[in-house]
Amino acid sequence: MFESAELNHDISKAVYRREQAKLRQALLDAQNELRQSGHFAVLILIAGVEGAGKGETVNLLNEWMDPRYIQTHAFGVQSDEEAERPHMWRFWRALPPKGRIGIFFGAWHTQPILERVMGRIKAGEYDRRISEIQRMEKMLCDEGVLLLKFWFHLSKKQQKKRLKQLARDPKTSWRVTDLDWKMLERYDDFTAVCEPFIRRTSTAEAPWIPVPGADPQYRSLAVGRTLLAALRERLDDKPVKRLPDRTPPLLPALDRLNVIRALELDQPMTKDEFRKEFDKWQGRLNLLSRHPRFSEISVVAVFEGNDAAGKGGAIRRVTRSIDARRYHTVSIAAPSEEERAQPYLWRFWRHLPRRRIVTIFDRSWYGRVLVERVEGYCSEADWMRAYGEIIEFEHALARHDVVVVKFWLAISKDEQHRRFKEREKVGYKRFKITDEDWRNRKKWDEYERAVCDMVDRTSTSAAPWTLIEANNKYYARIKVLKTLCGAIEDALKRVKKNKNKKK
Amino acid sequence: MFESAELNHDISKAVYRREQAKLRQALLDAQNELRQSGHFAVLILIAGVEGAGKGETVNLLNEWMDPRYIQTHAFGVQSDEEAERPHMWRFWRALPPKGRIGIFFGAWHTQPILERVMGRIKAGEYDRRISEIQRMEKMLCDEGVLLLKFWFHLSKKQQKKRLKQLARDPKTSWRVTDLDWKMLERYDDFTAVCEPFIRRTSTAEAPWIPVPGADPQYRSLAVGRTLLAALRERLDDKPVKRLPDRTPPLLPALDRLNVIRALELDQPMTKDEFRKEFDKWQGRLNLLSRHPRFSEISVVAVFEGNDAAGKGGAIRRVTRSIDARRYHTVSIAAPSEEERAQPYLWRFWRHLPRRRIVTIFDRSWYGRVLVERVEGYCSEADWMRAYGEIIEFEHALARHDVVVVKFWLAISKDEQHRRFKEREKVGYKRFKITDEDWRNRKKWDEYERAVCDMVDRTSTSAAPWTLIEANNKYYARIKVLKTLCGAIEDALKRVKKNKNKKK
Repeated sequence: MFESAELNHDISKAVYRREQAKLRQALLDAQNELRQSGHFAVLILIAGVEGAGKGETVNLLNEWMDPRYIQTHAFGVQSDEEAERPHMWRFWRALPPKGRIGIFFGAWHTQPILERVMGRIKAGEYDRRISEIQRMEKMLCDEGVLLLKFWFHLSKKQQKKRLKQLARDPKTSWRVTDLDWKMLERYDDFTAVCEPFIRRTSTAEAPWIPVPGADPQYRSLAVGRTLLAALRERLDDKPVKRLPDRTPPLLPALDRLNVIRALELDQPMTKDEFRKEFDKWQGRLNLLSRHPRFSEISVVAVFEGNDAAGKGGAIRRVTRSIDARRYHTVSIAAPSEEERAQPYLWRFWRHLPRRRIVTIFDRSWYGRVLVERVEGYCSEADWMRAYGEIIEFEHALARHDVVVVKFWLAISKDEQHRRFKEREKVGYKRFKITDEDWRNRKKWDEYERAVCDMVDRTSTSAAPWTLIEANNKYYARIKVLKTLCGAIEDALKRVKKNKNKKK
Repeated sequence: MFESAELNHDISKAVYRREQAKLRQALLDAQNELRQSGHFAVLILIAGVEGAGKGETVNLLNEWMDPRYIQTHAFGVQSDEEAERPHMWRFWRALPPKGRIGIFFGAWHTQPILERVMGRIKAGEYDRRISEIQRMEKMLCDEGVLLLKFWFHLSKKQQKKRLKQLARDPKTSWRVTDLDWKMLERYDDFTAVCEPFIRRTSTAEAPWIPVPGADPQYRSLAVGRTLLAALRERLDDKPVKRLPDRTPPLLPALDRLNVIRALELDQPMTKDEFRKEFDKWQGRLNLLSRHPRFSEISVVAVFEGNDAAGKGGAIRRVTRSIDARRYHTVSIAAPSEEERAQPYLWRFWRHLPRRRIVTIFDRSWYGRVLVERVEGYCSEADWMRAYGEIIEFEHALARHDVVVVKFWLAISKDEQHRRFKEREKVGYKRFKITDEDWRNRKKWDEYERAVCDMVDRTSTSAAPWTLIEANNKYYARIKVLKTLCGAIEDALKRVKKNKNKKK
């Protein structure tokens, strides 16, 4: 793997000075074009052994280019903010937007490698982490991010020499810590873990690029030139042509039966019954949210449904039952400019709750496989891969003791018509009905198809869909509350069990 | 996952008859076009629960289309031929060529799922198998195969009903075995393994398609229509446009130093020294190939090198040392028509040796990242992904106790010139030198670059490259023999150790 990187390269100062001047100008130009066009984001991962010049190179890149448009992130110990979210959250929030360059120093590869070398995680868990990284990087590439992964390398001999060199000089000796010497002792252990890691996470779109770390001049020019060539290749590209969609068609509908139509949408419940039930479940939910172990979980509740199916009303019945400091409601409409400059799941990752918080999404990431699919806002390949990406996202939540509850509120086409008409008549409801609602209604069948595919492809044991028969809003609201209480109760039990296991 | 598939679909006989007639004609037409154009291969995977109509559907597909151009493979217990190769070998050799339809019944998914349900493999090994499947399927899609994966589903209740039905009727009762009833008892265990399996192996290019298995008419039309739609989509496609290559450039060469140039190509060895050494190593290799434990391994030796570097001579020194029944030499030139109709690694999989056999590849799969790269016979994206595919291939071999030895025979540009001239002069050597050799020589630097990248990206601990300094052919031949003996000795020790462990 490191055959080339271990050669003793050596570039003279004169050559370096001349080349560096040219390179800096070209890099600045490219960065400027990138910023102007805003076509894609650049993410640079910096990895490798200690003493191979990682820090120096990052400083240099910031010096060579305009640092205002470079975001450098070093990931050390997790903050408490970070520890309360799934571990990929810290990387999501640091992603560079389109037009910018992000540098990740010690990114998602660091923890798994370290923990594996230290024997803190087993092969199974380690494999899971690698798959997670593979999917994350694939997602970034699919979303158009230019991902460059540099692996700074020194042979054992080179590393030893380097540490001695630094230690000898009083000006640099502070940089060599006991940990560095200890790491050197474990050099072979690291190599045994890193080599297969690099192999398994190198893909055609985002291969690891080994950088020989021994000669500062050589490695600086090497990284700079690679970055420049990658930037130029993309900037000089014609706008990306899409491959014709290679996705095979989903199962055709042969009869009128599907998971939505199989529902009995009219369910009985009178207003009086509702009041009694509501008192009961409201109290239950409130108690649950004050449960001592509630501080060990978070809740993400997703509300999707037909237009006018009563999402708002159902959400209000939930929020009324919880202390206002304990919930956030996130209403999802068209993405902001900032959000459009990021991979599409970014806008949802940013809203993930800390512990003991309930986050309610009024519409959600499922827009990708519903409205974006039906209206053609994204390509078939994009929404097809979204199923997998969404499942992965929700699994990351579930593994982190975030309760994921997903509701689809379904009403009949007739009932929708009745509600639309009513909204138009009643003054204070009029703001709720727009031309778009009528337009969407014309695509009823297409939306229904999309909903069925969504349920089939994203209802998992970790994050199942609950279909809510919502022609009767009383019934619907109670079913939502009941389901939510049940899911939280299960999670509290699970947390207790896991705790006992750990003991 | 199976929400839709568990609905009680029901299609009337009249509708079925009418639809079926139309479908058959359309499928025949599509199959014919596929055959004529020969643009891509179709691979259909049939999976799912017992009693859900898998067999019936496969029969039907063969009936509806021209069975001469459909290759149906059911994979049961491994043959001894198969057991002596890596476990993916049986699938590789059954792959349909372009223009044909292949149906795999119980493909690569069956074993891992079964073994996991039975508790025979642990989570770590199971994860590894899933990754292997993911990479296999990705490779197929990247190679242009239309991959359709049908998962036939029945709910527990439906499966029970179905088995009872079959058992009641004397005409079908023979089809219900004790095993079927036992499987039914473990229904929930299977679901617990299958659901995440389906989730993890569903991708945008090759999603699992759940087929409701309860109603024969429904499921037949569903599968037929899906196949037809997928075929039509591809057949009516304009020729596939390539995405502009999204691969970032590899590290640029900044100085004249690289792994090849770092070699001291002139190594001392006289003819007399050679004779003595050769006797010694020839004897050693011969003994090794007669070692009792040699029957538990196989050997794959790859010879690559500059033109006129002496691959042939080195190979002859190896084969002279082994019983002729124990080795095969495979000379790789341009692929045959049959080979061109398959994914590019297919032609190498087909030559994998049984136990106790040494297969020598005179040039190999590395053509993809050498000549095909330099001459532009494949796109950058193709050869970039080849590094990963090759590593995966060689790891499958190594895991299966196949010793993989890879030699790069390097000579200097001057030495090559001398040998070319000599070949032109000496009559019996003239056949060995062609215009192409002279043409290749002009691209010396490009080839050298490709060789360095190849070594960096495909030299792994499981299958390392050995660089042979070959200006002196005596030295080269001895180093080849020595390396080969060393690798076999290591493997024999490893096999013994593993055996002791198992005890």
